[in-house]
Amino acid sequence: MKWPAHGGQPEKMYSLTGLKQDKQVYDFSANLNPLGPPEAMKLVDPQILYTSNRYPDPDYLEATRQISLHEGVSKHNLLATNGGAEAIFLTAQFFSNKKALILEPTFSEYRRACSIYNLTITTLTYDEKNEFSLPMENLLSTLETVDVVFLCRPNNPTGTMSSYADMKQIIEHASTHHTAVVVDEAFIHFVRSEFEDLTSLQKTYDNLILLRSLTKIFSIPGLRLGYVIAHEKIIRTLKGNQIPWSINSVVINLLPTLFKDQHFIKNTKVWLEQQLAYLSTELRSLDFYITPSVANFYLLKDLHQDQANLLNYLLEHGIIPRHTHTFIGLDGRYLRFAVRTEEENHYLLHVLKMWRENR
Amino acid sequence: MKWPAHGGQPEKMYSLTGLKQDKQVYDFSANLNPLGPPEAMKLVDPQILYTSNRYPDPDYLEATRQISLHEGVSKHNLLATNGGAEAIFLTAQFFSNKKALILEPTFSEYRRACSIYNLTITTLTYDEKNEFSLPMENLLSTLETVDVVFLCRPNNPTGTMSSYADMKQIIEHASTHHTAVVVDEAFIHFVRSEFEDLTSLQKTYDNLILLRSLTKIFSIPGLRLGYVIAHEKIIRTLKGNQIPWSINSVVINLLPTLFKDQHFIKNTKVWLEQQLAYLSTELRSLDFYITPSVANFYLLKDLHQDQANLLNYLLEHGIIPRHTHTFIGLDGRYLRFAVRTEEENHYLLHVLKMWRENR
Repeated sequence: MKWPAHGGQPEKMYSLTGLKQDKQVYDFSANLNPLGPPEAMKLVDPQILYTSNRYPDPDYLEATRQISLHEGVSKHNLLATNGGAEAIFLTAQFFSNKKALILEPTFSEYRRACSIYNLTITTLTYDEKNEFSLPMENLLSTLETVDVVFLCRPNNPTGTMSSYADMKQIIEHASTHHTAVVVDEAFIHFVRSEFEDLTSLQKTYDNLILLRSLTKIFSIPGLRLGYVIAHEKIIRTLKGNQIPWSINSVVINLLPTLFKDQHFIKNTKVWLEQQLAYLSTELRSLDFYITPSVANFYLLKDLHQDQANLLNYLLEHGIIPRHTHTFIGLDGRYLRFAVRTEEENHYLLHVLKMWRENR
Repeated sequence: MKWPAHGGQPEKMYSLTGLKQDKQVYDFSANLNPLGPPEAMKLVDPQILYTSNRYPDPDYLEATRQISLHEGVSKHNLLATNGGAEAIFLTAQFFSNKKALILEPTFSEYRRACSIYNLTITTLTYDEKNEFSLPMENLLSTLETVDVVFLCRPNNPTGTMSSYADMKQIIEHASTHHTAVVVDEAFIHFVRSEFEDLTSLQKTYDNLILLRSLTKIFSIPGLRLGYVIAHEKIIRTLKGNQIPWSINSVVINLLPTLFKDQHFIKNTKVWLEQQLAYLSTELRSLDFYITPSVANFYLLKDLHQDQANLLNYLLEHGIIPRHTHTFIGLDGRYLRFAVRTEEENHYLLHVLKMWRENR
């Protein structure tokens, strides 16, 4: 079976399994904010499409200014990118031919980008028995032997998140060994505030490179906007390698609209925390294991059954989870679900309850 | 002076020269179709923005099918890209660490991409005395010594175009020496039909890589869509190096709209040919040299004056030409103008007539 490498492709899941897509489909396989896009997006003047008959400013000065205000960092420490994906690829390119450490299971594009730019990859795994926590001791000693470590925080696909204290220790230790730490915070805007993001640490440590994305929190995966926060010198080099007009002007023109509702992100965090608490209580009471996620997705495992049967059952009921066959170390032993709207989450619980009752 | 590396940035030209931007501005510095975007674009449902809250298909199957129909090539020979720029960068990456030949003056991004991917660059120049024609003899012998040659047809910034027969000879000769020929046909859709495009040659010669763009002909530089036409094996490797979701879903969703008016491209060619004939007659009668362009832009030179004075005069009258300081071999000795609407072209002629009368 050739499993798709990414979520958000319901049709492929049906054609792959040979199951019929005869019901309404609920896509739990893409990790987007179910509360988005922000309301203001619906009031946008369609002229925004026609004004795109001008080349985008190749330096994206105004967009950079807006994002730097939003993130509270200097524009010299910021590079806007064509989604989080370009941020990952430019970073891997920066370390061409060097040595990278990747912690699995994680987002597959770090490994792909590192392979393309000829990095030698060392692999460690999260501690599955301890709910996918960081293997701190092993991590600290191994990072001494590489040039760059790629971390995802919160981690995709587990939804789990390392503490600020652990991250500080890692970055500090890496700094003394001239190792760079790349932290992909593509889902950081979903996380409640006691888990601090690493912006303040970036100001102290030159070896810390943060990757972020507006794609997930604003539910605009098709519009593509990400960015890198890093030391000025690194930003300059990344920019020197970026293709011109990499970012489309529609998303650039929409930035003020996206940032307009200052409560949107906060409201999402509050809502998500409630949904996660509710879902985990209900799912555990049905004897499913779920990861202690702080993000808008989680891993689930039926403690009594093979996950392949469960996947087919869900597809038959119009629910598309993300398979985990392409995540190193998971190999299909879990399913990943996005936290969707309350209604969709209820439907998922309903279908899982039926599944449990019929076995 | 730090001249901007690309056109389409009127504000930068004013801030650079210190001149006041107190009039309406006519941007002749970006090479876009003045007849575009197609009328159908104005009728687009703005919902196209909200449907972008789904990830684009990472394989762009439907978009690839539509472009392959439009170009009459197999989908296996086609890769859709984030504008022509990504097509250039992926191609340079394909030849990483090898030897490239670039003919100057030309679009600056071939050289930039080759530098980023560590290609050794040999430079030849177009024959300025013979209206920027190809230096055939020198070109044929030099291409034997490199792995890849980058050509632009019609060439930016001159607007001139090598003949089909010359191109065939170059590609054939390169083929026997295992040299690849990259032809950037970003402006080919503007050119009248007796100048054949090279699609048919690509089907015969594995060493021919064609780069195209919908950005210019449809006046959608902010929406970003280009593509590569090449041998299946090359396409597969380029795709393997492409960042995921590189192309935004707005332009993907707009493709049927862009291709809807089947006469749009043909009408553009007919209109452009008339305008070029008119402009060259008028400009030559005013004692300006202009290149024998077949594209939607041309180089101009005042035969009696320094171009720097002319540039300032034009900026003062709200006309923004493209300076040529960043084109190797031109070094400011010409100005490049886009063919704009009839009204704008008339205004340009009017201002140039005043310039001529006052000196």
